[in-house]
Amino acid sequence: MKPAVVILGAGKGTRMKSSTPKVLHKIANHSMLSLIIKEAQKISDDITVVVAHQADRVESEIGDEISNIKFLRQDDKNYPGTGGALRGFRCEKERVLVLNGDMPLIESSELQKLLDVEADIVMTSINLDNPTGYGRVVEVNGEVQKIVEEKDASTDEKLINSVNAGVYLFRSSILNKHLLNIDNSNASGEYYLTDLIELTVNSGGSVKSAIVSKENFMGVNSKKQLSEAEEIFLDRVRDRAMISGVTMHLPKTIFIDPDVRFIGESDIEQNVTILGKTTIKESHIKAGTVIEDSYIDNSTIGVTAHIRPDSHIVDSKIGNFVEVKKSQLKGVKSGHLTYIGDSEIDEGTNIGAGVITCNYDGKAKHKTKIGKNVFVGSDSQLVAPVTISDDVMIGAGSTITADAPKGSLAISRIKMKIINGFFYKFFGK
Amino acid sequence: MKPAVVILGAGKGTRMKSSTPKVLHKIANHSMLSLIIKEAQKISDDITVVVAHQADRVESEIGDEISNIKFLRQDDKNYPGTGGALRGFRCEKERVLVLNGDMPLIESSELQKLLDVEADIVMTSINLDNPTGYGRVVEVNGEVQKIVEEKDASTDEKLINSVNAGVYLFRSSILNKHLLNIDNSNASGEYYLTDLIELTVNSGGSVKSAIVSKENFMGVNSKKQLSEAEEIFLDRVRDRAMISGVTMHLPKTIFIDPDVRFIGESDIEQNVTILGKTTIKESHIKAGTVIEDSYIDNSTIGVTAHIRPDSHIVDSKIGNFVEVKKSQLKGVKSGHLTYIGDSEIDEGTNIGAGVITCNYDGKAKHKTKIGKNVFVGSDSQLVAPVTISDDVMIGAGSTITADAPKGSLAISRIKMKIINGFFYKFFGK
Amino acid sequence: MKPAVVILGAGKGTRMKSSTPKVLHKIANHSMLSLIIKEAQKISDDITVVVAHQADRVESEIGDEISNIKFLRQDDKNYPGTGGALRGFRCEKERVLVLNGDMPLIESSELQKLLDVEADIVMTSINLDNPTGYGRVVEVNGEVQKIVEEKDASTDEKLINSVNAGVYLFRSSILNKHLLNIDNSNASGEYYLTDLIELTVNSGGSVKSAIVSKENFMGVNSKKQLSEAEEIFLDRVRDRAMISGVTMHLPKTIFIDPDVRFIGESDIEQNVTILGKTTIKESHIKAGTVIEDSYIDNSTIGVTAHIRPDSHIVDSKIGNFVEVKKSQLKGVKSGHLTYIGDSEIDEGTNIGAGVITCNYDGKAKHKTKIGKNVFVGSDSQLVAPVTISDDVMIGAGSTITADAPKGSLAISRIKMKIINGFFYKFFGK
Repeated sequence: MKPAVVILGAGKGTRMKSSTPKVLHKIANHSMLSLIIKEAQKISDDITVVVAHQADRVESEIGDEISNIKFLRQDDKNYPGTGGALRGFRCEKERVLVLNGDMPLIESSELQKLLDVEADIVMTSINLDNPTGYGRVVEVNGEVQKIVEEKDASTDEKLINSVNAGVYLFRSSILNKHLLNIDNSNASGEYYLTDLIELTVNSGGSVKSAIVSKENFMGVNSKKQLSEAEEIFLDRVRDRAMISGVTMHLPKTIFIDPDVRFIGESDIEQNVTILGKTTIKESHIKAGTVIEDSYIDNSTIGVTAHIRPDSHIVDSKIGNFVEVKKSQLKGVKSGHLTYIGDSEIDEGTNIGAGVITCNYDGKAKHKTKIGKNVFVGSDSQLVAPVTISDDVMIGAGSTITADAPKGSLAISRIKMKIINGFFYKFFGK
Repeated sequence: MKPAVVILGAGKGTRMKSSTPKVLHKIANHSMLSLIIKEAQKISDDITVVVAHQADRVESEIGDEISNIKFLRQDDKNYPGTGGALRGFRCEKERVLVLNGDMPLIESSELQKLLDVEADIVMTSINLDNPTGYGRVVEVNGEVQKIVEEKDASTDEKLINSVNAGVYLFRSSILNKHLLNIDNSNASGEYYLTDLIELTVNSGGSVKSAIVSKENFMGVNSKKQLSEAEEIFLDRVRDRAMISGVTMHLPKTIFIDPDVRFIGESDIEQNVTILGKTTIKESHIKAGTVIEDSYIDNSTIGVTAHIRPDSHIVDSKIGNFVEVKKSQLKGVKSGHLTYIGDSEIDEGTNIGAGVITCNYDGKAKHKTKIGKNVFVGSDSQLVAPVTISDDVMIGAGSTITADAPKGSLAISRIKMKIINGFFYKFFGK
Repeated sequence: MKPAVVILGAGKGTRMKSSTPKVLHKIANHSMLSLIIKEAQKISDDITVVVAHQADRVESEIGDEISNIKFLRQDDKNYPGTGGALRGFRCEKERVLVLNGDMPLIESSELQKLLDVEADIVMTSINLDNPTGYGRVVEVNGEVQKIVEEKDASTDEKLINSVNAGVYLFRSSILNKHLLNIDNSNASGEYYLTDLIELTVNSGGSVKSAIVSKENFMGVNSKKQLSEAEEIFLDRVRDRAMISGVTMHLPKTIFIDPDVRFIGESDIEQNVTILGKTTIKESHIKAGTVIEDSYIDNSTIGVTAHIRPDSHIVDSKIGNFVEVKKSQLKGVKSGHLTYIGDSEIDEGTNIGAGVITCNYDGKAKHKTKIGKNVFVGSDSQLVAPVTISDDVMIGAGSTITADAPKGSLAISRIKMKIINGFFYKFFGK
């Protein structure tokens, strides 16, 4: 039977130095909390997020993104701490897994390790080469006896290298029996879930430990740790892409959103950023390019191009310092210093250097349509709304303010003048 | 006497998830196979590449790039495996070194270590801190007795930390004597070269081992390993440049082709890419710049400039978002948002922001020639073919469609009009 | 009492392969020597730099940047080496700390560790896991007895893992007593400061050792080490920013000058460079952007924008391939492919794609002033000096050569012409 999951998301996260509550900080553009919920959803259909600090903001931001989760408000004035967080939680499953909202690297495969253990409490432990300073998990015959802090540890206990990873799976009966018995007579005045271990052992219950991956259970308490967690998270995303057949150059310099989808073989060069629900199919993304929420198929993009959301680029070549936004391109070449916005451009069309689609008139955005085999001369402006039919040539430097019919030349140009000797008059000599 | 070299390049490389045969995958824009051949050429003049999967493609791609190598087609249907690869190979040297086409980091200095050992077979071994899982090289008095797999290893043998690196130097006589005795009665049904070790030891021959660098003998089986090998390869390229006097900032973000040549002191900033047969002499390459197959001398390039092939830039300053292609620049300043293609520009000339050389008319590329001390006004277009003589001024926003004589002003401009009140009429208010 | 500090800056640094003297090589755009002086100034008001190689250049470059330091010229022909460097130094303090000009990572907090020890000489030592090859620091009861070189070390001495870090704090009396007794009868013919240890021990003085951080005392002898030191230095700068509340993505790809100041929360994306005395306040700096010596407040910059010195950007949005130089922007949107130089632009103004301020006429730079709520049409040129009043619309592709009054439309445009059938005439078909 699937467990209930409770995710602790009440904390402020003082060390984040932020007006944003801790669990809403982002890893690869996804809040830590949403990443954890998505993993939890793979093993549970009953997920509760405990909130307190900026509870409204957490509820609305997460609620907008993910449906089918419950929120529980912690009374953190009267019952602070992880033990306080579960007060008022009514478990409808046989077991409940308690996760921390600041552990964004948790994967369901690691959580499954807990679920596979039978005990009243299954705690998580990590093996450290050097456990100095951490509380050690003392086990006898596979049963956890206690967690002993460094300062209280005996010489033998100090040799133990498994330490508490902070995630627990409880039988609901244990929560019902012991939760209200946790007290807060400690230095911080908080209620600690960890105390349930002692209460359970003392009353003859069974506590076992599952060894889990250190990386999965990394907690994020500062923006430095946030960047470290993001790096590990991106390693996973990049590795997954490479395993699927994507070539990456200097992958540590490549930023890829986990929602990006790769189809077939693509080549992603150094210093590239790919964001949002982008699909890259059989394409070559060159150095320094940024792509957002777009579809790229059988195309070469960059170096240093910027593809903004809602672009659909097929069989095309987009070159340096070209920006494309909300446009459909099929079989198009646009090599240099161009802005293509709100446009549809068809096969065989070549966009010269420095071309600008003037899609905004100060009031609204308008569309540019360019047909097949059009030659758009360099540095011309297409003042939208405007339609250029198939087989049109546009003269360099033209301001195109009206539609151009099939087969025509569209041009706005004044004859060039030569004023002899002007250079010397102006500069002297 | 120089050995023959055989490079095994027959494999498909299933884990690469690619339509390209494994050995043609690239490290810093050079196929793994070509990198290995180039190292092999330093120690041998008799090199054979064994091909099977997509044999035609491998032969033509490598044959186009490198001359003086032989190809041998493996009958991988009937004789699969490394042992099958050498069937039909006729060795004209006393010794033959067998390399794997998926070890792109091999350097001739490491191969020399094998050549310096006298034995019927010289195998390579690597010392691993943790050899668990690898076949151990069992040696007695400097003679290899056997390679024992983990599962067959005795307690003592498990303590051995030298493992087989997979590269062998054979006396030809050993190949002639034993190659056809290798059988394929094993799980995979393949013929293994490794079996020659046992056959040789059993018949009283001498097998020795050369300890080699782990990094050199890294095999590439997936695109993740390809990226890892490329990173190590680029480390070598970057280190070599720095040792020669080049300053690099955040070298891990800098991609440099091994064919790039540095002369004197240069400064290469973060996120720079330098490709192909580029020469950089006493220049400053600023952040985010990409340079391909060009010559840069005493110049500053970037930030974020793109120098495309066949550019020759001397004593110049190229600024942000400027693209130069197939052009000669000497003593030129081009600071901003410009495309210079198929051009020759001479000393003292200043190219304004947003200037475009219109080198393509839809049918062919044409040349732009600009003389000395020319002032090219911003956002002007030079419609090639066009020649601007020395001491010319070009007005901002002009479309230059004809040659401009020395000392002149060339301009195409219509008088600006003011329409009072239009703003309020258009936007309301 | 504060010590005197002597910084050894006389060396050429042959392995740097450079025409620049070693101590003037830069870490994050600051010379190694200036970084060391700034740390030394935190613990001393009496700083002397010993110079010899290119002494004039070192003195003038450092003297221009930092006041209140003394220079001492070493007679490196007759008295080479670190022992020779202090000849002629007259110590006016009770103690003198001798630093090396090629240790750019030294921090005053580590230097304080030496000052806290009482002895005739306080030397620095580093603990190495593997000290093989290094001279070991032999101590008995907390007193340094000698430094023994690898080749002279006994079996017991070889087990010592603390090695000499090369920085010393001397009582002035020790210098006065022993400095001239150092001889140069060694292989290199140089005078070594290290010899003072033996001279002091032998005459009954006290020599103690302070354990210091290996990273702080890293010496830079090559451009590879320079890049490694810069990476460590940048780690400090980036970590400091993140601890203060700045979010960074792929921090290893971000280059930040130590003089950059962050206020509040900002978000710095991958592949960003921020240089000079820049302030970033509550802003979002997107991938691939470069910012130099500017003030950015409540703004979004990039992707791939370039903000050059003396820009002051508030409440604005600057987009891709936009360059801003020496300009004041408040409440401005400039999204694409634009050059804004020597300009003042006011609230509500929108700069279209491809707009160029023509600030340079070949002779001098001129200013562009743009008022509130101006709509600057795409690809227009503003030929400075020029003033655009509030509520002006500028037509796309216009060359603006004169001031535009409030509420007007400014436009320079020739009517577009259609020439039917031209396309087929030109291209055939």
